[in-house]
Amino acid sequence: MMRIGMLTSGGDCQSLNATMRGVAKTLYNSMGDVEIIGFEEGYKGLMYADYRIMKSSDFSGILTEGGTILGTSRQPFKLMRQPDEQGRDKVEMMKHTYHRLRLDCLVVLGGNGSQKTANLLSQEGLNVIGLPKTIDNDLWGTDMTFGFQSAVNIATNAIDCIHTTAASHGRVFIVEIMGHKVGWLTLHAGLAGGADIILLPEIPYDINVVADAIKKRAKAGKRFSILAVAEGAISKENAALSKKEQKKLQQNNPYPSIAYEVGARINELTGQEVRVTVPGHMQRGGAPCPYDRVLSTRLGAAAGKMIMDGKYGYLVGIRNNEIVNVPLADVAGKLKMVSPDCDMIKEAKLVGISFGDE
Amino acid sequence: MMRIGMLTSGGDCQSLNATMRGVAKTLYNSMGDVEIIGFEEGYKGLMYADYRIMKSSDFSGILTEGGTILGTSRQPFKLMRQPDEQGRDKVEMMKHTYHRLRLDCLVVLGGNGSQKTANLLSQEGLNVIGLPKTIDNDLWGTDMTFGFQSAVNIATNAIDCIHTTAASHGRVFIVEIMGHKVGWLTLHAGLAGGADIILLPEIPYDINVVADAIKKRAKAGKRFSILAVAEGAISKENAALSKKEQKKLQQNNPYPSIAYEVGARINELTGQEVRVTVPGHMQRGGAPCPYDRVLSTRLGAAAGKMIMDGKYGYLVGIRNNEIVNVPLADVAGKLKMVSPDCDMIKEAKLVGISFGDE
Amino acid sequence: MMRIGMLTSGGDCQSLNATMRGVAKTLYNSMGDVEIIGFEEGYKGLMYADYRIMKSSDFSGILTEGGTILGTSRQPFKLMRQPDEQGRDKVEMMKHTYHRLRLDCLVVLGGNGSQKTANLLSQEGLNVIGLPKTIDNDLWGTDMTFGFQSAVNIATNAIDCIHTTAASHGRVFIVEIMGHKVGWLTLHAGLAGGADIILLPEIPYDINVVADAIKKRAKAGKRFSILAVAEGAISKENAALSKKEQKKLQQNNPYPSIAYEVGARINELTGQEVRVTVPGHMQRGGAPCPYDRVLSTRLGAAAGKMIMDGKYGYLVGIRNNEIVNVPLADVAGKLKMVSPDCDMIKEAKLVGISFGDE
Amino acid sequence: MMRIGMLTSGGDCQSLNATMRGVAKTLYNSMGDVEIIGFEEGYKGLMYADYRIMKSSDFSGILTEGGTILGTSRQPFKLMRQPDEQGRDKVEMMKHTYHRLRLDCLVVLGGNGSQKTANLLSQEGLNVIGLPKTIDNDLWGTDMTFGFQSAVNIATNAIDCIHTTAASHGRVFIVEIMGHKVGWLTLHAGLAGGADIILLPEIPYDINVVADAIKKRAKAGKRFSILAVAEGAISKENAALSKKEQKKLQQNNPYPSIAYEVGARINELTGQEVRVTVPGHMQRGGAPCPYDRVLSTRLGAAAGKMIMDGKYGYLVGIRNNEIVNVPLADVAGKLKMVSPDCDMIKEAKLVGISFGDE
Repeated sequence: MMRIGMLTSGGDCQSLNATMRGVAKTLYNSMGDVEIIGFEEGYKGLMYADYRIMKSSDFSGILTEGGTILGTSRQPFKLMRQPDEQGRDKVEMMKHTYHRLRLDCLVVLGGNGSQKTANLLSQEGLNVIGLPKTIDNDLWGTDMTFGFQSAVNIATNAIDCIHTTAASHGRVFIVEIMGHKVGWLTLHAGLAGGADIILLPEIPYDINVVADAIKKRAKAGKRFSILAVAEGAISKENAALSKKEQKKLQQNNPYPSIAYEVGARINELTGQEVRVTVPGHMQRGGAPCPYDRVLSTRLGAAAGKMIMDGKYGYLVGIRNNEIVNVPLADVAGKLKMVSPDCDMIKEAKLVGISFGDE
Repeated sequence: MMRIGMLTSGGDCQSLNATMRGVAKTLYNSMGDVEIIGFEEGYKGLMYADYRIMKSSDFSGILTEGGTILGTSRQPFKLMRQPDEQGRDKVEMMKHTYHRLRLDCLVVLGGNGSQKTANLLSQEGLNVIGLPKTIDNDLWGTDMTFGFQSAVNIATNAIDCIHTTAASHGRVFIVEIMGHKVGWLTLHAGLAGGADIILLPEIPYDINVVADAIKKRAKAGKRFSILAVAEGAISKENAALSKKEQKKLQQNNPYPSIAYEVGARINELTGQEVRVTVPGHMQRGGAPCPYDRVLSTRLGAAAGKMIMDGKYGYLVGIRNNEIVNVPLADVAGKLKMVSPDCDMIKEAKLVGISFGDE
Repeated sequence: MMRIGMLTSGGDCQSLNATMRGVAKTLYNSMGDVEIIGFEEGYKGLMYADYRIMKSSDFSGILTEGGTILGTSRQPFKLMRQPDEQGRDKVEMMKHTYHRLRLDCLVVLGGNGSQKTANLLSQEGLNVIGLPKTIDNDLWGTDMTFGFQSAVNIATNAIDCIHTTAASHGRVFIVEIMGHKVGWLTLHAGLAGGADIILLPEIPYDINVVADAIKKRAKAGKRFSILAVAEGAISKENAALSKKEQKKLQQNNPYPSIAYEVGARINELTGQEVRVTVPGHMQRGGAPCPYDRVLSTRLGAAAGKMIMDGKYGYLVGIRNNEIVNVPLADVAGKLKMVSPDCDMIKEAKLVGISFGDE
Repeated sequence: MMRIGMLTSGGDCQSLNATMRGVAKTLYNSMGDVEIIGFEEGYKGLMYADYRIMKSSDFSGILTEGGTILGTSRQPFKLMRQPDEQGRDKVEMMKHTYHRLRLDCLVVLGGNGSQKTANLLSQEGLNVIGLPKTIDNDLWGTDMTFGFQSAVNIATNAIDCIHTTAASHGRVFIVEIMGHKVGWLTLHAGLAGGADIILLPEIPYDINVVADAIKKRAKAGKRFSILAVAEGAISKENAALSKKEQKKLQQNNPYPSIAYEVGARINELTGQEVRVTVPGHMQRGGAPCPYDRVLSTRLGAAAGKMIMDGKYGYLVGIRNNEIVNVPLADVAGKLKMVSPDCDMIKEAKLVGISFGDE
């Protein structure tokens, strides 16, 4: 009999359950004898041996369910061989659970940080398979992560709702979209929602350029402007500072988040009324969209196949619409960012979207 | 030939276009000879004679469109016979436009403040018909306003999205829902979204009662709690203050809005992690839901019929699923609030929802 | 300890789970000692003692879930004291189960037929409470049934989708909407979707009037017409026949359903291309809309309260937005139909909708 | 000044307007002097010089609108140099209009047939650019067509709705999904909706295999089975016939469509109750999903850029998430079909989906 451990780690997102269902259905269908062990709340469950033995029926009817049936937690610690409160080595604790339960493999659904840990465990000799979870789509080695398109739908819907109210009142509206380091979600939702200005972490903005774009629209008779602003959008001045100076600035920042700051500056520079909307955690929630369910089922099935083939140490990704295996070592610690001169940015500029940079 | 003026006033909401379409289709279908004049941006358009002559085709295809094709504005002035910048009496300015354009009637789509002005104009001798617009459902004299159910859908969807993420992470989540004075929207969305605790302007809360409800849930093994909090939710202490003291308190308030304040207190009292979501203006936007489209079409048709019958000075409302005419004088200045001991509150308490009051 | 039986009967619809949750939460919250017994697949489960003892957690997380956790079945028999295959009296079988399980009350979620049976059982001395389930909204004694607004949303969405394709191609489109005897669903969805022609079971149509309405639209430059047609729509000729003659006609009918028949006639009479869409059972499925969830929670809570008060023999309904109790004897065997001269029909005609009758 | 002709051809789909907006915004933003001529109802408008001169504002606010502002028509003729009723050569008529209007380029939004004609015109010396429109995703040379993901969403939603009702009643449900020759839409929606059996045109089915899969599920205690069946699904027996024999069979077929036929056979072979749902033209309608809006904006911008660069004779497609130009001659007459042994089919089989073939 094979024994497979499974956990979901990091901020939750849509399609975690659909992915686990894909793995589980493949294993139950194809192998006579398999047991799946679900760890509670991510790596914490693996460390403290907090788990339950899953039944086939646990994976029934969850294709369309948001969240994760296993629970998740952000890793509340740097895992690199740092001790827990009792002074025990965390990595050793996880290895201990793995070996004590006689697992044949550990399946990790997680984003950047979680795959880094997955790689660490793999290097320690555990059989690990990673699955690319994140609404940010910033995992290296895969064209797409599950959760991303569902989040794009919610963020776009926020812009759509704002569109009608902006048009009726003739105001500037800012929708703040998740993404501290990476702007894919904002870029896609901004394009899909017809935002006039898009501010991304990867393209520092000049607030005067932003204000000019708004004024130009007003002059052309457009009653409103809509900005899609990533949480991690940054001005050129601030981007030029050292990380330390940035942190200090952040601490004295009177605004709850960047959208409010940008809004205040626009109001100063253009005199126009500005409203801010922050859909926030909504972007991680709700049922996965059909796109994600297809992606998750494919990735899950592929992971199941790899387990049957004994192929470990990889992240299962998708490239050019085909499943690929990327060594966890290649994935760990890398981010897939928006390049300021990539095709998509150029195309967005062609249709008249300003990124506040020129 | 009849000449009908039309305007949309106050904060925008869903189904304004559907309602205007109902009026227009009725008039165009039933009267040979009618002209509809649309004023831009609410009463401002009426004051400054900023209008356009509508065509039948202007009302085609707008049944499902959010916003308002006429634009709207909050009344940026107290209208009661106060002068504008040029010292002219605003009411006189509006009467002047009405008479100069030889209008037979003015149709006003608006909420509380706007219907008050409608009543004023009616008392000044203009033929006025009011239509009940607001996501707050707080207009006196009608069971339901258009925009309300659409807003309930959006606010509920916000709670739905939060639900899955709350369940995955085991946190307290607060969703702030529109409504400064009246809690209908929060009450309906809270019930529909399965919120555990609902805080309304009409039922001052005791933060200790709120915290206890959360702790009790945690003790019962529930990993999360969801609060639906109206913008105008108020604590018992603050509710006991005079308006003046409340205002002062407000000015020194470090929190961007009530949800953040409640969140901070809950974190203090329970030690649980709290997240706040503010869907904000999204609640006014997007396409009207089918319920609102039916209501708007019915109200619009009834208003058209009243114009044909020369019946003026009324708000067109709905009671017990039948169209009613309520004298504008009865509507003006009244608010339909949630009574703390109404059936719906009792039913909500029966299923275990806490209102923080006992 | 109290022991409450519960069953869902007839065609399924949205919000069955939300309603059961309302009852259950109220009972668990308010009474120390209660046991809920769920019968499988409606009255069949009661007859054959096919049941399970429910846990509090069974009712958790089902507020937004479509379908019914208990399963349902159409009553595959006339219940009025007819014997089953073994020759046993069905009513006696149900009474037997009720008494053997020492139930204090039986809660029946069902439509017309099911409430008739509920009344029968009530007259036989059982404590019965009915809850108004149906997408048809045709139950007598309540303004609204749960499931109805959710079905309106789906049927309207079908018309919305068709609208864009109809406009692009310039065709006549027919959307067939559920409702064999009663037209509420078609009427609401037709109004909400902006249908040009609405055909209801209660208003027999003249196909020439229908064709003329389409031709008139074409002449006025409209490229398309959309018809919302109830499953039970009937022509004036057929409505004039005896039930027996109607049945015979039905048996020789070459069309799969009425929409295809109307479509063929329109094509003959106008020469226009016609397309038919039949959303069918989709209209019963999916998550309940927020409106239904509020209604269900209120009805469920009220039913729970009645159980605590020992008030039996009633359907729990809603009138003028307040919960009412209607004796089951008053409900049984009655249908709430669309009156051809009700306000809503008049209002629909005012905005130019044709019902094919004049 | 440049003069660009534009037309939408073939069955309509979502995101046609979004794509035209992308082209137009790019041209208006980047070139001082450009005029866009819109032909009405596809190639018919080009043949008969039925067109209008577009304004910049015509392309405003249409990003989210379904259908096409230009209208469309299926090509009601084989275009290969066949005469129209007046005996004139159709291709010559189109060339005549193109030259008379002094067009610099013709932009064709269309599917397979339409791109074949685009290629023909290109070979006749016109400057033509094609854009890949179809809900079928069967255009050769591009990974994705616009309209496809929106249609996947609608078809999946149909399965989702059916799921709850199927589970409640314990029946076999068949959802018929668009696609006469190609199964991408059915494959994606089937996977996303959690269908148990998927029948595609590319994989002829054995009805006994289908029935066995259903019986096996029933034996395993599953109360229901859901089939996603493409319009063009075909049995092994029929697939073995000649085209002529197939056509003859088709003409004598008593079933309105394949889903009904499959349903009847399943009922015979398993004895289970079967219900059929045909969402039909709904799948082409409604607002484009965010994915499609992003894709359309990118494709449109790229087409605009090609016009500025004078690069003609290509279909603008997307491969590996980058815009590509594919010679129209390569696209014309080819279909991108589902290969029975592609990865996605294998992955679907791994999670237990039957394709009725083995």
